[in-house]
Amino acid sequence: MDLLSIKDPSFLKGLSNKELENLSQDIREFLIEKLSGTGGHIGPNLGVVELTVALHKCFNSPKDKIIWDVGHQSYVHKVLTGRACQFDTLRQYKGLCGFPKMVESEHDVWETGHSSTSLSAAMGMAIARDLKKENNYVIPVIGDGALTGGMALEALNHIGHEKKNMIVILNDNEMSIAPNVGALHNVLGRLRTAGKYNWVKDELEYFLKKVPAVGGKLASTAERLKDSLKYLFVSGMFFEELGFTYLGPVDGHSYDDLFENLAYAKKTEGPVLLHVITKKGKGYQPAESDRIGTWHGTGPYKMETGDFVKPVSAPPPGWSKLVSETVRKLARNDERIVAITPAMPVGSKLEGFASEFPDRMYDVGIAEQHAATVAAGLATQNMKPFLAIYSTFLQRAYDQVVHDIARQNLNVFIGIDRAGLVGADGETHQGVFDIAFLRHLPNMVLMMPKDENEGQHMVKTAIEYNDGPIAMRFPRGNGIGVPMDDKLKPIPIGTWEVLREGNDAAILTFGTTIPMALKAASLLEKQGYSIKVVNARFIKPLDEKMLQDLFGANMPILTIEEAVLQGGFGSAVLEYAHEQGFHHAEIDRMGIPDKFIEHGSVKELLEEIGMTVENVVERIGKLARKKQKRA
Amino acid sequence: MDLLSIKDPSFLKGLSNKELENLSQDIREFLIEKLSGTGGHIGPNLGVVELTVALHKCFNSPKDKIIWDVGHQSYVHKVLTGRACQFDTLRQYKGLCGFPKMVESEHDVWETGHSSTSLSAAMGMAIARDLKKENNYVIPVIGDGALTGGMALEALNHIGHEKKNMIVILNDNEMSIAPNVGALHNVLGRLRTAGKYNWVKDELEYFLKKVPAVGGKLASTAERLKDSLKYLFVSGMFFEELGFTYLGPVDGHSYDDLFENLAYAKKTEGPVLLHVITKKGKGYQPAESDRIGTWHGTGPYKMETGDFVKPVSAPPPGWSKLVSETVRKLARNDERIVAITPAMPVGSKLEGFASEFPDRMYDVGIAEQHAATVAAGLATQNMKPFLAIYSTFLQRAYDQVVHDIARQNLNVFIGIDRAGLVGADGETHQGVFDIAFLRHLPNMVLMMPKDENEGQHMVKTAIEYNDGPIAMRFPRGNGIGVPMDDKLKPIPIGTWEVLREGNDAAILTFGTTIPMALKAASLLEKQGYSIKVVNARFIKPLDEKMLQDLFGANMPILTIEEAVLQGGFGSAVLEYAHEQGFHHAEIDRMGIPDKFIEHGSVKELLEEIGMTVENVVERIGKLARKKQKRA
Repeated sequence: MDLLSIKDPSFLKGLSNKELENLSQDIREFLIEKLSGTGGHIGPNLGVVELTVALHKCFNSPKDKIIWDVGHQSYVHKVLTGRACQFDTLRQYKGLCGFPKMVESEHDVWETGHSSTSLSAAMGMAIARDLKKENNYVIPVIGDGALTGGMALEALNHIGHEKKNMIVILNDNEMSIAPNVGALHNVLGRLRTAGKYNWVKDELEYFLKKVPAVGGKLASTAERLKDSLKYLFVSGMFFEELGFTYLGPVDGHSYDDLFENLAYAKKTEGPVLLHVITKKGKGYQPAESDRIGTWHGTGPYKMETGDFVKPVSAPPPGWSKLVSETVRKLARNDERIVAITPAMPVGSKLEGFASEFPDRMYDVGIAEQHAATVAAGLATQNMKPFLAIYSTFLQRAYDQVVHDIARQNLNVFIGIDRAGLVGADGETHQGVFDIAFLRHLPNMVLMMPKDENEGQHMVKTAIEYNDGPIAMRFPRGNGIGVPMDDKLKPIPIGTWEVLREGNDAAILTFGTTIPMALKAASLLEKQGYSIKVVNARFIKPLDEKMLQDLFGANMPILTIEEAVLQGGFGSAVLEYAHEQGFHHAEIDRMGIPDKFIEHGSVKELLEEIGMTVENVVERIGKLARKKQKRA
Repeated sequence: MDLLSIKDPSFLKGLSNKELENLSQDIREFLIEKLSGTGGHIGPNLGVVELTVALHKCFNSPKDKIIWDVGHQSYVHKVLTGRACQFDTLRQYKGLCGFPKMVESEHDVWETGHSSTSLSAAMGMAIARDLKKENNYVIPVIGDGALTGGMALEALNHIGHEKKNMIVILNDNEMSIAPNVGALHNVLGRLRTAGKYNWVKDELEYFLKKVPAVGGKLASTAERLKDSLKYLFVSGMFFEELGFTYLGPVDGHSYDDLFENLAYAKKTEGPVLLHVITKKGKGYQPAESDRIGTWHGTGPYKMETGDFVKPVSAPPPGWSKLVSETVRKLARNDERIVAITPAMPVGSKLEGFASEFPDRMYDVGIAEQHAATVAAGLATQNMKPFLAIYSTFLQRAYDQVVHDIARQNLNVFIGIDRAGLVGADGETHQGVFDIAFLRHLPNMVLMMPKDENEGQHMVKTAIEYNDGPIAMRFPRGNGIGVPMDDKLKPIPIGTWEVLREGNDAAILTFGTTIPMALKAASLLEKQGYSIKVVNARFIKPLDEKMLQDLFGANMPILTIEEAVLQGGFGSAVLEYAHEQGFHHAEIDRMGIPDKFIEHGSVKELLEEIGMTVENVVERIGKLARKKQKRA
């Protein structure tokens, strides 16, 4: 059918299973084609085609609340709710968001991006419904990976206790973002192989009925029964014991099975957990045969072959790889080093480290809080943990960084990946708060390198530093192609570097915004202004000597940071100036204003917020002119 | 025996059970007497006397790592590790800390204060041990309440998966801080009543052996078996399924039972969970009969009667009660209001609200992340959630505040209790980071009242505000005794209030530090200086009009805040001044410096960090003198 003509999901009510299967085929072809041009989360979406169609046929959205955990699997939902025509703009500036977004549709009742929030949100909606004496279903859809996140477990516990009506869909695809870890996954794994597509309870009853036939060997019967029970049954019991009615597992690609179980779930009082088995990438051979997560989220690809569209020339080394491989190199001579990732071994490029040091690499699952405190525990034993974590996900371990790492002043190296604007993933994933939420913590060292060569020296710096926590933020994407030193040497803590001398004004910046500053300085040189550019690579502690010199020379200052302005690096400079009595220091701050930044290319987003060479020229030029006039 | 003579726990090895029982009695009497003078966590410590003695007899601390989750139950451990002589100074300035503290003893291998961190820390220590090929036990001791915290569940999942050797002690006291909620607690509850003090496994085998004797009624046998299994067994199975060997439940006050089980646990490969049943307050009648948590942590009391030592005159209303009762009052006419607490219904004084609106009050357990997102979920349905949470515990919901509440701009009222210095609980509990971690979030309104009367108007303000999240911070303890208005009226968002006019300099402050500012201003008046004092009750947004006027008049400014200076309120004033081109504004900031603040009375701590009337006089006086000279 013509997917572009869909306005809302009501048309599904009249379709037969055969027609739904044809529709599924159309949706798959549509997504495979569209995403070949835009890139996106193809694997997860191909896995939930039937599940999404079934939910929209069985329920009445938006009266019934369908909540997509993480949200990158909401493309089919977007097609069914009238947004097929916008897929050419997927994840592009001002285009269709890759996650649920309330402003796009009344069917997006909850926005996600970070994992494991759906059950708590659903609980809030269920409480509200019951208080308002309304009558609707609340249906969170959560993956097996997201279920290991602490807040999802907190929610399961509470929902089970309160016995609210709710239908939790456990979307169990055999491949989550990375191969899943954790005992909970083992439970699901056992369940998957046992009693497939049958009611677990029926299976048990059938089994129990056969018990007496075994006859005399009581002890061994007991033994066998116990093992089999455990094997067959207890996994569903995990949820049953928490207070849920457990249904499944069912084939998430069979409409018959889905409809039967959803109908049963709708009739059941109290919370239900429906365990649905799906296959990521279903229906597209390259994605379906993926085992390591390459097809979880991709850039553009050739539809026919599944070959990724490569850039014309080879890019400089990626930041994640540079950092992880440098840690790996140092780990060869430093047995204290242990790497920890919360479910991002591929994104953080830790595969090499893991294969060389399998005993010294821990993927703890989607469990950022636990990851941070495991690192703290290691550090108490004189180990040197490397916590590889994205900036946006470090938010979830804030209290652990405060209470366990910084307060105990433990030697944890936090590698903050995807710091700054991240582009297509948009506002849930921008790594723009880390400076503001780390800078105020006692004992914390925070730094950011200007290029990949300085980056490798900073890794060395972090590993050698033994006076407490040290964090290095680095951006999404690739380095800038500088030559790499062979020998690594630590950078003295709290030292900045003058990249360009100048007398009229100074730009203090670090990381990705350095090229912008240098460009502006060279443009202003042609206009007769001499601008100093400083690589302020330590965000905390500041280079106090250099600041004293700058303030002492009455040098006007522009700070630039790809992070929120409130409480950021520029504020640190302001604070220091006023603490030291330089009340007259002229300090202008450029950075991300007080609003959430949506998706788009980093370039487009920087333009939107006015972080451009032109604006740097204007703002530092203004300061330089005033200085020249005063002189 | 003479507890003061204990140097380390080695003396325990030679004692008989009878002698240990005498020792337990001595420890109980010691704690009951000492804490009657100092106050402290009497209930939890009386509950773990035998458990602590048994752990120190069976293990070799500090080689073996005993980790106290939360840590308020570590007093017996402190007695056994040579600190009995310091109990007169418990929780006092420069005295014995109420929580584990590495600087106090080598036996304190991990510091706690916040809940649910012990399992993750233990995992880090176990990984380190195995990598270093060392050979020691790791023994986290966690309560049943703390086990519902998400990060503890994340850790259980990971530990079970990795199969590291570890002995988790589940200290299951029937009363945690508040009556426990959650399905997990139900599981534990069932286990507690069933098969008490027996091996659950043996119980099951015995039961299974009897199955064939039941004979012909197969279906009903299956039914009965299923129910009984569930009843008897599955609770231990919860842990077994996660990969633990489950032992217990055992009587935590019987040395015979504890030793037998600890010996078994030591011989067992892989992670063990030993379920120990203890009674909070054991051995002290007033504490033992407590059902609502009054004896969890107390001030001084009369040892003989258990009567609390009351202050001579009745104090002004407590802040928690003022806020919760005002919300309750408003809830009578506003059906949107729902209160949420993460396990602190008593601390947050929500008992009245709960009894009047049982359907509109949710205690979600020790689950701050879930609490915040439940509030967000409620707000999507046009409810008005009141999230009652301590400042220090809000740290654990930072990502949920960012990603779910602020980003979606939802109408959640966050009541931030215990903001600022909290006194005796010390550095793990100081509520000093909240301004710095909330101020940089888009859409957030943050305020603090000057007294309890303004506090009640601010509650009204928060409830009426419908443009996004709004947070009100208020201190631990009591109001200052001002008259209370009968009629509540909202305060316009972002408006400050001039408390005292003046021309030479201005103090901008809010909340608890206002009296200090007023005192300093009146002292300086006698010296001929005219100091303006502003109640800067909105920390975000600032009162921009008033700031413009102050900057325009070249008024020097001192900001005062009982919160960290980095990224705090004073920084907001600096940022605004420089954004608006008032580069010459003279701004001095007083607040908490860049270090963790230990325990002591709030007065002592403020003195330590120089937040005193004298220092305010000196610093604002200096600014005023300069201004007068210029004029």
